[in-house]
Amino acid sequence: MSNHTPSIEADDGHEDDYGLDKSLSSQVLLALATEDRDRLVELFEPLHPADIADLLEQLGDAQRKELIELSGPLIDGEVLSEIDEDIRESVIDIMPDAQIADAVRKLESDDVVDILEDLDKSQQATILDALDSTDRLAVEQALAYPEFSAGRLMQREVISMPEHWTVGDAIQNLREQVELPEQFYHVILVDPRHHPIGYVTLGRLMSSAPDTSLNTLTEPSFRSFRVDEDEGNVAYAFNQYHLISAPVVDSEGRLSGVITIDDAMVVLDEEHEEDVLRLAGVGGERLSNSTFRIVKRRFPWLGVNLFTSILASLVIAQFEDVLTAVVALAVLMPIVASMGGNAATQSMTVAVRALATRDLTSSNVLRVIRRESVAGLLNGVLFALVMGIVCYFWFGSALLGVVIGVAMIINLLVAGFAGVLVPIALDKMGIDPALASGAFVTTVTDVVGFFAFLGLASVVLL
Amino acid sequence: MSNHTPSIEADDGHEDDYGLDKSLSSQVLLALATEDRDRLVELFEPLHPADIADLLEQLGDAQRKELIELSGPLIDGEVLSEIDEDIRESVIDIMPDAQIADAVRKLESDDVVDILEDLDKSQQATILDALDSTDRLAVEQALAYPEFSAGRLMQREVISMPEHWTVGDAIQNLREQVELPEQFYHVILVDPRHHPIGYVTLGRLMSSAPDTSLNTLTEPSFRSFRVDEDEGNVAYAFNQYHLISAPVVDSEGRLSGVITIDDAMVVLDEEHEEDVLRLAGVGGERLSNSTFRIVKRRFPWLGVNLFTSILASLVIAQFEDVLTAVVALAVLMPIVASMGGNAATQSMTVAVRALATRDLTSSNVLRVIRRESVAGLLNGVLFALVMGIVCYFWFGSALLGVVIGVAMIINLLVAGFAGVLVPIALDKMGIDPALASGAFVTTVTDVVGFFAFLGLASVVLL
Repeated sequence: MSNHTPSIEADDGHEDDYGLDKSLSSQVLLALATEDRDRLVELFEPLHPADIADLLEQLGDAQRKELIELSGPLIDGEVLSEIDEDIRESVIDIMPDAQIADAVRKLESDDVVDILEDLDKSQQATILDALDSTDRLAVEQALAYPEFSAGRLMQREVISMPEHWTVGDAIQNLREQVELPEQFYHVILVDPRHHPIGYVTLGRLMSSAPDTSLNTLTEPSFRSFRVDEDEGNVAYAFNQYHLISAPVVDSEGRLSGVITIDDAMVVLDEEHEEDVLRLAGVGGERLSNSTFRIVKRRFPWLGVNLFTSILASLVIAQFEDVLTAVVALAVLMPIVASMGGNAATQSMTVAVRALATRDLTSSNVLRVIRRESVAGLLNGVLFALVMGIVCYFWFGSALLGVVIGVAMIINLLVAGFAGVLVPIALDKMGIDPALASGAFVTTVTDVVGFFAFLGLASVVLL
Repeated sequence: MSNHTPSIEADDGHEDDYGLDKSLSSQVLLALATEDRDRLVELFEPLHPADIADLLEQLGDAQRKELIELSGPLIDGEVLSEIDEDIRESVIDIMPDAQIADAVRKLESDDVVDILEDLDKSQQATILDALDSTDRLAVEQALAYPEFSAGRLMQREVISMPEHWTVGDAIQNLREQVELPEQFYHVILVDPRHHPIGYVTLGRLMSSAPDTSLNTLTEPSFRSFRVDEDEGNVAYAFNQYHLISAPVVDSEGRLSGVITIDDAMVVLDEEHEEDVLRLAGVGGERLSNSTFRIVKRRFPWLGVNLFTSILASLVIAQFEDVLTAVVALAVLMPIVASMGGNAATQSMTVAVRALATRDLTSSNVLRVIRRESVAGLLNGVLFALVMGIVCYFWFGSALLGVVIGVAMIINLLVAGFAGVLVPIALDKMGIDPALASGAFVTTVTDVVGFFAFLGLASVVLL
């Protein structure tokens, strides 16, 4: 009944029921070592293509090559479309052209587009040559839309019907279609100019009397997107308005395709992931990237950080006199900077996320800035008290305690304020706040922290 | 045709087509100021409940109260189920009981459960009293399942049929049902013990001849979940296996309900969001939280950071002699710590995310640890060269350049290694790596950074 029986369901109740189990990958490695193709076929048989793709991603380069060669056609089009794009290129390089051709021929056009867009020209040509002319045209048309647009995301296989049809007409028509799209949840109603004007769920269609007019059954959730709409906006709308599918229209408003929720879910997932990674300066990274590649990718961010920490050091260098006189300052100053940096990261993360989810808008921006600043100030006061007392007992100096306390209050206030203001300012300037906020914000708290602490110390202690 | 016409589609091609536009919120505030209820009705009319909920979330407490009072029944059950849980409690406090009762009576049972689970006992009683006895029973049964379980997430409205039925039987049956669930995409086939054994898409059903047996039309994607399965695992499986809906079974394997992809998408979205916030020590925060609340929530994380930075300061305190002798060390030492901290955060973020997405497994863990360590080492060497040269020109001392260079190489190597090892170890111990990794990892790089730099300096420069 099922060719992807979830083998993993056997060990019911176990915490990690989903995804690959560990013994599977060691069994595959064993089959690989003994070149036992029959065993490999047996192991792959119950797996979903997404799990086979994960398995390939988790292997080292040499093992992956061996596995692909031993698997042959077991690595089919569905596996290819599930596999991470960074690995896919090398997988396709290893596969014989005839096998690639077989694999892609069985895919829907949107999956072929998804595979093609990240390949180099010669690999693209291999795949396009394998398609029949109709599919090839559909794929080429989709590739003509900008990257990350609704046009790229949509499938062209659409079920649409004239708005004046009845339920009986619709069912009759569906029965006569040779091939229905793999995924469809709505029949889209179009006017004579082929503009989509509403849709009917299949459930509604099926439960209504045959003489019911389709346009009395439309759903209020109906919403359409233009082919050039950004896929991030599409994913946002699917999530916000609980859409299941939505038609995509060309610049004339004519129906061009349909986007389904599973595609939107993938985009939402990827955008989220990218945002988290960007906050840490590792945007665009994959776990499968080579060492050399991640060194190259991380270098610029670390370079920015080197520059900003040199700025902070230049501030410290202005206070050599007081540092020589009171060595306790050198011992304590990282605490002021570190607390400021952490408080700022808290505010910044909240602000960056709220901008991404569109919860931070002109109606609440002032309230949020005030809240973050006051929260920074209050935590500053609390930690100033703690640190003042610690200093008094550690270095026996009440004055030193006062200096570090006041410096912390100033730095945590600034941290709260800058933590939320910097992402908002970057966003206004059209710069991705997830990418750039961290460097700016920690520079501010480092510079302010060292300046406030050492500056106060010069005045009070020298 | 549509009662949620997307008013925002009017300004086509604009970047921020989705979500609330700015002028809307100012218009609502104006209507509120002039107590113009007709205008408010007019403004709300084209809005999706999710947008009305966003509007309420973005207002201050006083304005929100006024808006709720002026809106009356415009704040219906759908708005209530869209609104952020932190705000919901206060909204329900403001609304008259009769209005709450009206609102929830129109919702499906899973939405009522979603609203109820975050309310206090007396508010729960108000809502339960408003439901008729069947709905009340369904809601109470759902609340008996553990929080964050498939049982809580599922809807109880299911379309199931005996496996031996034909397409004709199925369509006949669907036509006869008085009320079909709002969302359904599959007919679930059950055996005589009411165990789900497969499903048929509505598209397949509709396009097949009436005498076709249902069990010849089942889909390979079929997968079921137990009522006590964690909702995170359910969301993962929906995303990994591109599920649209899946049956939920009780401990005897009997069909209890169904989960649809839109519910899974919400869970995936929330889990992602929570992971990002946890990494910065602001887990569980909402933009609508009060200042007092965020001060309280952030205090513990800042407290941990204070403790760890005092540890680092204790390391520095061991080297007072060399700091007094060479004040340049105090100027430079934050650079070593900061570079280490940033490099470690990069490795850590990659590892924490890979654990969350289940891409980091026993088959690639050694390779990833090696990759991160080598990448840290290589970037360490590169920045050691840069910083060595900077030091030579800044302080005129080649020896100081060598000291900071070697310290950076050591610290970045340790950063790469600890950045990936700490999250893995926490995960093995059953501690959420997103929550706790940051504090451990930066302690390691601070301590190692200061120790390597000042220790080397003591040996070489004193």
